This record gives sequence, structure tokens and C-alpha cells, in this order.
Amino acid sequence: MKNLRGACLFGQSGGPTAVINASAAGVFLEAMKHEQITNIYGAEHGIKGILDEKLIDIRQEEIKELEYLKNTPSSALGSVRYKLKPSHVDDTDYKRILEVFKKYDVRYFFYNGGNDSMDTCNKISKYLQSQKYDCNVIGVPKTIDNDLFGTDHCPGYGSAAKYVATSMMELYLDTHVYNTGMITIVEVMGRNAGWLTASASLASIKGLGPDLIYLPEQPFDVDEFVADVMKVAALKENKVLVAISEGIKDKEGRYISEYSSKLERDSFGHALLGGTAMVLAGIISEKTKIKVRPIEFSLLQRCAAHIASGRDIEEAFNAGKMAVKYAVEGHTDQMVAFVRDENSEEYKISYQLLPVELAANTEKKIPDAWIKEGHTGLTDDFYKYALPLIQGASNSPVEDGLPRFARLKKISAKK
Amino acid sequence: MKNLRGACLFGQSGGPTAVINASAAGVFLEAMKHEQITNIYGAEHGIKGILDEKLIDIRQEEIKELEYLKNTPSSALGSVRYKLKPSHVDDTDYKRILEVFKKYDVRYFFYNGGNDSMDTCNKISKYLQSQKYDCNVIGVPKTIDNDLFGTDHCPGYGSAAKYVATSMMELYLDTHVYNTGMITIVEVMGRNAGWLTASASLASIKGLGPDLIYLPEQPFDVDEFVADVMKVAALKENKVLVAISEGIKDKEGRYISEYSSKLERDSFGHALLGGTAMVLAGIISEKTKIKVRPIEFSLLQRCAAHIASGRDIEEAFNAGKMAVKYAVEGHTDQMVAFVRDENSEEYKISYQLLPVELAANTEKKIPDAWIKEGHTGLTDDFYKYALPLIQGASNSPVEDGLPRFARLKKISAKK
Repeated sequence: MKNLRGACLFGQSGGPTAVINASAAGVFLEAMKHEQITNIYGAEHGIKGILDEKLIDIRQEEIKELEYLKNTPSSALGSVRYKLKPSHVDDTDYKRILEVFKKYDVRYFFYNGGNDSMDTCNKISKYLQSQKYDCNVIGVPKTIDNDLFGTDHCPGYGSAAKYVATSMMELYLDTHVYNTGMITIVEVMGRNAGWLTASASLASIKGLGPDLIYLPEQPFDVDEFVADVMKVAALKENKVLVAISEGIKDKEGRYISEYSSKLERDSFGHALLGGTAMVLAGIISEKTKIKVRPIEFSLLQRCAAHIASGRDIEEAFNAGKMAVKYAVEGHTDQMVAFVRDENSEEYKISYQLLPVELAANTEKKIPDAWIKEGHTGLTDDFYKYALPLIQGASNSPVEDGLPRFARLKKISAKK
Repeated sequence: MKNLRGACLFGQSGGPTAVINASAAGVFLEAMKHEQITNIYGAEHGIKGILDEKLIDIRQEEIKELEYLKNTPSSALGSVRYKLKPSHVDDTDYKRILEVFKKYDVRYFFYNGGNDSMDTCNKISKYLQSQKYDCNVIGVPKTIDNDLFGTDHCPGYGSAAKYVATSMMELYLDTHVYNTGMITIVEVMGRNAGWLTASASLASIKGLGPDLIYLPEQPFDVDEFVADVMKVAALKENKVLVAISEGIKDKEGRYISEYSSKLERDSFGHALLGGTAMVLAGIISEKTKIKVRPIEFSLLQRCAAHIASGRDIEEAFNAGKMAVKYAVEGHTDQMVAFVRDENSEEYKISYQLLPVELAANTEKKIPDAWIKEGHTGLTDDFYKYALPLIQGASNSPVEDGLPRFARLKKISAKK
């Protein structure tokens, strides 16, 4: 536990979310309250911005704009996907990072992201320790996939889940409007964990959810899928609503989306870029002769700040704020983890610390017991878990009928 | 002008919108105020419900639920796509309609939809006149395509436009987050008119709009498209955001989406169902080697009640209300048309009448003068036209963090 004096540096990494900037706001606005934090820097494009010495001087931003970050989707500082090699294999990047940290007297480092980003955060933390460079390092969790180990849930998930559940309800009404059949296959993000696809089932609480849900936690069988769909079609006048995860794989471990990787061509011979829903729509179309519509929520599900969960925004902000508080108290080498009070009737979260190495690279999946038989949805235990996370309106500021997002000046902190 | 006494019948037709039920609420709640309206019926699946005598007794619904209709997307009574043959070719359907009207003493008929639905409304109106059956018939406009002739704009458009503009802003931030290139092609609905695709340009008011916009009003040339995209890519570090209308056609009049109609197959030989964006993404991918992502707003753009325009909801409600008022005053054979006060500084709309035959089957397109050269967007004149239509929040009721949609009992009015 060391109480340090110096600059703080914050970086964003991995896929954007609707609330990752709320964590940035939490870090920046809290950092301003502590006199031992002498400067506040943001790294452009995460770790890449450190290596390239592209740091932004946050103190030159207007407070009002930092407040607007709470409702601005995507990563305002820019994101990156960059995997650090282990330092014993190649320490070039680590040396450069230390050099930049020394130059800017960085004594507080906060890194915001998912599994891979926590891996980066962990590696930097361990390297700085090995070099006896005093710097308190805290990871701030973030991922719509909700698959970080050691935290009840991840900032970003609640908002994406709210988007998915709300859109499913709207789609249910839309796809049931005609007196003719239609099979709608909705593809939701999630490569290895089905948390976000599972959130489609929250629409079922209102009677407007998907008939079938397929998660990457279970092997996917095309024949079984076709049989499932035809069974529902027979019962429900050919009106079927299906939610599938982009990450479903067959027994051999092959992604269903890869079924379309080779042969599809348009009539001029150009490649067609389709996803999982498109592959399955083609199969169902041929097998049933019922009209099929594949729908991909695509990037919309992770950036739809206009329907972010109010609770998610607040918690993402607090995650950033608490990271600074803990660091200033002298904690290091940790990630902020959400712990739910299981004894409380009401939903209650506390922000605790978890060694960052535990969060790095470990994936949390949906418990088997929460998944209903026959791909028919999720159990009440899942509802009890997920429903509190989508509560509260985003109350995003609006100007001219359009969102008012933060406008940062991004003035270079170059020394 | 005849003041009639009897039942009123309301039907919904064509593609759903976020606010078509607001018009239903306007019709039903206004109809209850007039003692000469003896019964209030809703037709299930529009004209099909009349032919099948599937009428719902609206007086048996709770007022509270009829109020919830204002924020419930899609067509609560069910919709239909059914084209009546001209009565001189085959009058079977017309005779059946007259029979049902007589049986239920229908003296007020309201039909809610776009071009095709106004055609239906017009044909029924003319047939009833020819049979000397007294019934006041008023069309209520509706279409996200905004292509109805004789009205400043159409209910449904403002909400879809707000969804498209807001989502484009969010997508802009998401697609510009990495330090690597990406070309994003977003497909917007609109088969023949580009109003909805054009609304993507409203995001440009906030500096977060698409670089290129392609409308069905102009012939589409694939080579020109590739050149346009590569030009922007060269200027903007390979980050390009494009909005295209699903209805773009080449010089020969062939839809670009049809380019994919024959050959695409997955590796098991199943058909792949792709749209315009997918076809173009394949072409761009091969020509530029930059990462390309096609995104379809799909059904989401027409059913996203959670981000409906407050003004659109209000106007859609008023359109239904005014239809009843005009009919009770004795007007018939008309459609409610929106007229904008061009002399007023502030946005001001009045609800006037237009002979329904003028609205039937005529498409209104975007004026050439509003379309910028080189597919770079729309002019200020378009902004001045469209921006007022997306103002105001939906204020949709929420329960458990999810939308509270209307729940109708739909009790049969069978006699």
C-alpha cells in the first residue's frame, strides 16, 4: 500500500459499449478531487497511445463535456486491440511504457476493458513491480459480453441487455402483425458466452420474447435447430421468433457463421459477408418454405446510448470513481469488482477489489442450471440476476431532437 | 355532406410503424365522444378482417389500454397486404364488404395506411357511393417511407427518421473508435423514395453523419460507388460511413439487392438471404481490401417505439382524431393531410382534407434540389423540412425497465 504523488493515466480498450465513457467520467472527475494527483492524462487508443506517446491533457477539457461523457457511447479516447507479448519473450513495449510513465511521472494507471484488457493491465502492473517503479494500477471492468471472472456483472452489459430485450419486444410485435407466417432469426453478439443473447429472454417476462434461444454454452446442431423451429411453426401459425448467439458452434467446434466463409458469391462473383443468422435463415428457408428474415443487431447493440440502462451508467461511473479512490488509498494490481449483496431483498452492489490477474483471460459463462431444456429460454434465476441490471432510464441530454454527446478538445499533453 | 348515425369501423394496413397505433388511439378515443357513433369496431388484419367478419368490439377494451396504444409499435389490430381488384373486374370482395357494413350498420369507415391502403380506401369509398350506401370514409395516412402525395409528411416517418439519425450518430462513434480502417455500409428502408435514408444526414448536423448517401431517386452506379468510397477512404484514414437505401437501382432499373438473388450459397449449398448492403460490402471488400461491415436497420427502424418522436406520436394521434371529427361533420371520400404553415417561423401543422383518390398510388419523392452533388448528403432545405419532425421524446411508459405496451382483450363483435 503506497500513497503516491504524481500524474494519473487512463486508457480504454476493446469493443465499445454505451457506458465505457461513463467510467472515464468517473475516473477523470474523481481524480480532480485529489491533490496528490498532479496531472490527468488520457491515452489515445489505449496502450497504443502510450507506446506512441499520444496522451491527452484532460485538465484542459471543460467539466461540462466530461459530464456529457456519461451519456456518450463508444470510447471517446479511442480504443485498440493490442496484445502485449509476455515480457520475458519481448520486453520492448514494456520498456517503452516505463519510459513514458517516467517522462510524465505517471503514478496512477487505470485501464478500462474486458478480458484481454485486464491481461494487458496485469502484465503492465507486474512489469512495473519488477522494475521497482511505484505506480498504483487498477483495472476498470467493461464488456457487453458480461464474461469477466470475479465480478457479479460488467459495466456495459446492462445497457446492451436493455437494448436487446426492448428490441426483441418491439420485433415480436412487428413480426406478428401479418396473417401470414414468418420465421425471424435475430443474431446477438457474444462469441463465447451467451449472457447478452440470454437477455433476449427478458422480453418473455412481458409475453413478447423469442420462442427459441441458442447460446454458445451449448453445442449447436443444425438438424435439431430445424426440428425445433418447425415444431414451433406448427404450433404458432408459422410465426417463429428465434434469438441466436453469433458464437454458436457445432459439435466439432466449428462456428456456424463459418459455414458461409467460402462459397457465397453474388452474381458478379463478389464475396458476400454474412453472419450466423444469415446462414441459418438460408437453411430454414430451404427446409420450411416459410418466409425467413435474418436480423443482426450488429454494432447497434453495443452503442445504443439512447436506451442505456440508468443503473448501468451509474455503476460504470462508480467503477471509474472507485478505481481512483482505491488507488489513492494505496491499492494496486487490482480490478474493481461488483459484489451483489445476496442477503438483501433489494438490489445492492458494493465495489470491491480483485487481484487483476484473476480477472485476466478467464471467461465466465452462464450456469447450466439457468438454461431451460430444448432451447426454450432461461429460468427465473436468470431473470432475477439480469432484470435489476436494465433498470432506470438513460436520461441522455438531447439537443435539436438528437443526442448531445461529449465534444472533447483532446489537447496533446506532449512534453 | 351527410350526418350519419351508426357504427364506426377502423382498420390498419401495410407495414407497421412505431406510431400507427397512436392513430388508432386517436380514432377510438375520439369516436367515444360522439353519440351518433353507436358502436366502435376494429378490423383484424385490415380489409381481411372485414371480409372474414373478424371485428373487435373496442368499447370492451379498457380506456387505459387504449391510451397505452399511443406508445405501442406495430399494428395492434393486425395488418395485411391485400390489393382489391377494380370492382368492374371482380366485385366479389366489394359485395362482401357492403354485406358486412350493412350487418354491423357501419356508417363511418377509417382506413390507416400508405399508398396501397389509400387505394383500398378509395375503391371502397367509390363502391359504397355507387351502391348508394351512406358511409363517411376517411383515410388516415401512415408510412415510414413518407412518400404519400398531398401531405407535408406522413405519421411514422418522424419516428423512423429519429431512430435512423440517432443510430447513425451512435454508429459513427462506434465505427471511428479504432486506429484501423473500416468501411461501414448501412442499409435503410425505402423501396422507391429516399426520405428515410435521407434522414441519416440529420446526424451530420452534429458532425456525426455518413460520408456518403445513396438514394433511390438517383440511378446507382457500382463503379462510381467504389470510386466515391475510395476517395473518402483516402482522405479519412480508411474510415468511411455510408448510408444506402434498400431501393437503389442501376441504370437498367435492376435493384442492387437482386445482384445476390441467384448464386450465393453457403458451403452446404443453402441459399443466403442478403440485402443491398451485403452485396455492396462484398464488392467493396474485394476492391479495397479494407475491412467492411454491412449493417441493416431492418425491422428495427420501423418498430423502435422506445425512441419514437414525441411530435410524431402527437400528430399520429391527431390524424386519427381529426378523421373522426371530419367524418362526423359529414365529410367523406377524403384523406387527412398535414399542411405546414410556410409563413410561420415556428413549425405549425394543420390537419386538412384531400380527396383520397389523389393520395392513392401516387409517390412523392425527394426534390432533386435537396440532394447534394456527388452523393455527399442533403441540403439545408432538407434539414429544415425534416428536423422539426423528430422533435420531442416518446415518454413511453416503462414497467420493470421494459416498455409497457397496450394489452387488448380483442373481444369479437360477432353478431
